[in-house]
Amino acid sequence: MSNKHLNLGIFGFGCVGQGLHKVLQNTKGIRASIQKICIKHPHKDRPISQSYFTTNPEDILLNKDIDIVVELTDDAEAAYQIVTTALRQGKAVVTANKKLVAEHLEELYELQQTYNTPLLYEGACCASIPIIRNLEEYYDNDLLSSVEGIFNGSTNYILSQMRQEGKSFVQALSEAQEKGFAETDPTLDIGAYDPKYKLCITLLHAFGIFTKPEEIFNYGITQLNEQDISYAQQQGKTIKLLVHTKKEAAKITGLVLPTFVDAQHPLANVENEFNGILVESAFTDHQFFLGKGAGSTPTGSAVLSDISALTYNYSYEYKKLHQNTEAYYSQDQLLEVYVRYQTPLDIDLNDFQCILQRFESAEYNYLVGEINLKQLYKPAWRKNPNISIVLNKVLVNANQTTIQTQVLEEALAV
Amino acid sequence: MSNKHLNLGIFGFGCVGQGLHKVLQNTKGIRASIQKICIKHPHKDRPISQSYFTTNPEDILLNKDIDIVVELTDDAEAAYQIVTTALRQGKAVVTANKKLVAEHLEELYELQQTYNTPLLYEGACCASIPIIRNLEEYYDNDLLSSVEGIFNGSTNYILSQMRQEGKSFVQALSEAQEKGFAETDPTLDIGAYDPKYKLCITLLHAFGIFTKPEEIFNYGITQLNEQDISYAQQQGKTIKLLVHTKKEAAKITGLVLPTFVDAQHPLANVENEFNGILVESAFTDHQFFLGKGAGSTPTGSAVLSDISALTYNYSYEYKKLHQNTEAYYSQDQLLEVYVRYQTPLDIDLNDFQCILQRFESAEYNYLVGEINLKQLYKPAWRKNPNISIVLNKVLVNANQTTIQTQVLEEALAV
Repeated sequence: MSNKHLNLGIFGFGCVGQGLHKVLQNTKGIRASIQKICIKHPHKDRPISQSYFTTNPEDILLNKDIDIVVELTDDAEAAYQIVTTALRQGKAVVTANKKLVAEHLEELYELQQTYNTPLLYEGACCASIPIIRNLEEYYDNDLLSSVEGIFNGSTNYILSQMRQEGKSFVQALSEAQEKGFAETDPTLDIGAYDPKYKLCITLLHAFGIFTKPEEIFNYGITQLNEQDISYAQQQGKTIKLLVHTKKEAAKITGLVLPTFVDAQHPLANVENEFNGILVESAFTDHQFFLGKGAGSTPTGSAVLSDISALTYNYSYEYKKLHQNTEAYYSQDQLLEVYVRYQTPLDIDLNDFQCILQRFESAEYNYLVGEINLKQLYKPAWRKNPNISIVLNKVLVNANQTTIQTQVLEEALAV
Repeated sequence: MSNKHLNLGIFGFGCVGQGLHKVLQNTKGIRASIQKICIKHPHKDRPISQSYFTTNPEDILLNKDIDIVVELTDDAEAAYQIVTTALRQGKAVVTANKKLVAEHLEELYELQQTYNTPLLYEGACCASIPIIRNLEEYYDNDLLSSVEGIFNGSTNYILSQMRQEGKSFVQALSEAQEKGFAETDPTLDIGAYDPKYKLCITLLHAFGIFTKPEEIFNYGITQLNEQDISYAQQQGKTIKLLVHTKKEAAKITGLVLPTFVDAQHPLANVENEFNGILVESAFTDHQFFLGKGAGSTPTGSAVLSDISALTYNYSYEYKKLHQNTEAYYSQDQLLEVYVRYQTPLDIDLNDFQCILQRFESAEYNYLVGEINLKQLYKPAWRKNPNISIVLNKVLVNANQTTIQTQVLEEALAV
């Protein structure tokens, strides 16, 4: 579909869909226009002509004049049907539905190959930050060593408001929802499922591996309280819900955990609904990307950019998948964590490889210790509402030298 | 040259060239290897086999086995000959030479079209930050409204050291040179020519217009002194050498000037050799990119990424050039500036549209006023060593409403 005008069929007509319609009417840059919009409720008042609308998905999916299907519904099950059917019909698809993409990533990849039609989903990962495109296009060699960042705007907003304004968790959450930063089901955000979906997508484009969301450890912010926040402040740190992934030789690890971040760290100053991503590669040292990670217009921007890319025949090449044939995902990763607890009975010290610090007082107890990620999955104590876990750092595993890094250090020392 | 192994011919074998050689030997991700290296001095000791080397450019330029020419010399005139000859021979070219690219941009564009072969130059603009690729690929629709940033690592290092460590300009400059952050000729950095070259390149990929370096106003940091720095601190600001470019309807303006930046602004915390770029577009609000902007490895990273992109047949499409046929470059831009002077006779107040503040004392005089950019080009006083000019802000020109922005604001208000 090189350089020709493209016709779009849209599912869902919320804020993003409505913004898209106006923008496409008023710009010349993107050679695409909306042909048909499939909605659930035909009798709502709409700001544009009724002739656009249909309640029958087939009016889009089986319409030969429609080149691109843009999936903007908030129903994951319906979205799966729409996206897979559209790909099978040979239509290009744009979606920002991270849950859908993460849960069906391998199948969606296969469908693209089989039907030779692209699926783009930049909006599914950190909204306005073009991270997928950059991982695909710019870091497409095997020098990438880690990606970490704030991948969820809603929880970042809550943490900022708790720390800066002294608001309670509940108050901050309700504000985030009012402002449209939180997902319909807040568990996805505060339980750190949303950033985990984004991590699944990132792992494919950064390191070329397929993972299932259930293979990735996620620990949200619901158990954090003002004691944890004030402990962080005493240490000159701030707590951020971070996604961590790194590569050591062929081994890839990934997790989502509240993390203490130094005040000087680029991620420390990413506040409210902003997301930030730090990409480390041997040659570049680090790159940092900052942008709005929640809200309808940042997501709309990514959707628009994907539509624009389709007018130039863009598709993900999944280069890393073909390059990194030995890469594998592992949960064998040593972590240094802070654990706040109410009584020593709350916790089983045998789960730790070692205890580095222990503090007990009438009001407040914590320990700092080393624990393996695969061990952290198991104990029931981590779900105890009187416990909170915050990551100090991802440790370098013993006996695991990164051959690649050594080679590069030599290369750069010439 | 899809997916096949590519042979490189390299001009220059300094630190970047040597790093490239080692990395290419040790990675599998990039299907390319070095075939021949053209150097000036055949008798230097080299860390690799003599069989790689030649002093005859034709051994690369006329060698049918070589697919990609990588230009890594520090001689702009030789670089021009190498790059243009290689393109005429139908070879793909990678360069990081910003002066070469900026001064010959239109010709280099034409050569790519005529000989249907790509020239990539990500390393020529902010080293490791993938800004050209992002402007080409991600912001390829007409919603982009401004790009501003720190485009020169050497001057940013100097300004950081002056402010944070109280070092003198001369001391900080000499350190920057020792660390390899400054260009061979420091005038290019401290006179703000280097960021101006990068701005020329940015203007093409952001807004689709060709400009000549001499059309763009640049004012460096040589005349800044500790009084300016302490004035900035009193105002809660920091001085950064910034590139500014923005689009108002079809009119594009661009300039390079030391600028007062609020402490909360993302660019305020970009220190030392780092570069930072803030991209504003209607939908995304703002995106911020941070990365090392000087030094051989960040540049090497961009060169490597360009080589990798060529193995996938990547070329710049210069989409904006074709989209924005009405866009034009203008120097008609109202600025609010701070001007420090020694005596009132140093300066001609008639050049200003209005004077907003004026401070005079035994030690130190300054004014804050509005001046048109096209007026700022003219007076000799700006080159007076007793004068320094720092931008307060780029003003919105009267009677110039950005129709596009209005449309988008409406679109997003739905």
